[in-house]
Amino acid sequence: MSKPEGVSISVIKRLPRYYRFLGELKEQGMIRISSKDLSAKMGFTASQIRQDLNCFGGFGQQGYGYNIESLYEEIGRILGVDKTRNAILIGAGNLGRAVALHMSFEKRGFNIIGIFDKNAALSGQMIRGLPIRHTDGLYDFCKENTPVVAVLCIPSAAAKDLTPELVKLGIKGYWNFSHYDIASDFPDVAVENVHLSDSLMTLSYKISNF
Amino acid sequence: MSKPEGVSISVIKRLPRYYRFLGELKEQGMIRISSKDLSAKMGFTASQIRQDLNCFGGFGQQGYGYNIESLYEEIGRILGVDKTRNAILIGAGNLGRAVALHMSFEKRGFNIIGIFDKNAALSGQMIRGLPIRHTDGLYDFCKENTPVVAVLCIPSAAAKDLTPELVKLGIKGYWNFSHYDIASDFPDVAVENVHLSDSLMTLSYKISNF
Repeated sequence: MSKPEGVSISVIKRLPRYYRFLGELKEQGMIRISSKDLSAKMGFTASQIRQDLNCFGGFGQQGYGYNIESLYEEIGRILGVDKTRNAILIGAGNLGRAVALHMSFEKRGFNIIGIFDKNAALSGQMIRGLPIRHTDGLYDFCKENTPVVAVLCIPSAAAKDLTPELVKLGIKGYWNFSHYDIASDFPDVAVENVHLSDSLMTLSYKISNF
Repeated sequence: MSKPEGVSISVIKRLPRYYRFLGELKEQGMIRISSKDLSAKMGFTASQIRQDLNCFGGFGQQGYGYNIESLYEEIGRILGVDKTRNAILIGAGNLGRAVALHMSFEKRGFNIIGIFDKNAALSGQMIRGLPIRHTDGLYDFCKENTPVVAVLCIPSAAAKDLTPELVKLGIKGYWNFSHYDIASDFPDVAVENVHLSDSLMTLSYKISNF
């Protein structure tokens, strides 16, 4: 597939879903699938699927469909999950612990190499084989280990205080669970927000208006 | 504001963000704000903001702007967060515990009344003042307490097995952390998905293509 120049964000947002579905089909031992069958499984129309995958140069063949393994690997490459980027996780409260323990970072192209919390009482406790470090040690740790991604599981005010330093330390990607708007203050870094309370309010709206 | 008939999902998706920002301004003791100042804070254009809020009958007055408290309360009503809906949380692993402890459900219109897990070893442990119950007791609990929302912090296969029963028991809203596609099998319930691994892959893409 070609490099995805100018592909719309809505296509990009659908890629992880393709990747997940194709991964499941691969695990079930399937070799190929038509866009029609893929559409039935995924809830997109067959034409939508053909259009989406054409953005990346396509992989389908008339009368054959898609080779599942090739397409899975190609989408993985486009998503960049075949890479390994060193990441730190900041905030080892309930949310940070759950994120650290629950997520398969390695399968998504990330390697958690350090966990930090400003609460000194937590220092030294182990999460997924890593000791919780005090945030005072962040500077030295980053200088030595050059992580490029930060997972922020801290409140907005703390995220706002810390981010300028993280940017200076070379952190280029942020998985941001706080409400602090990193992208607005630092347009030159990559940010993906998880706004759980917004999602809960959207559910509230849907229930009210269903 | 009028009832939001036919308001597009993209406007709806922005409402929680308005609600958050207005809540912060309210806490800071501000009384009113122009669409221009609101746009500077939120990163939407002023015209976007006027257009969005017009969908609900508007609240702005020429030369005055928006009354923060009125707008906050009105958006809260539209989102339905002024209501209280009884909810159960299913899955008391790392993720379920974090969601239970981290989220301000009450502020978003939900009241968690029961926490369930199929692991009997967890039964009786307390989370936010509630005992973890075995999923065997789900039927009786729902019959007696009639919750209308379920927060699913369980794997896809378990979610797929359990959802038909939950739908039969009258659960109308699902905050779904699993990858099981509830909306496709049950189009008559309200579903809001949180796909954390998709978000992480989107971050991977953004870093690769920034």
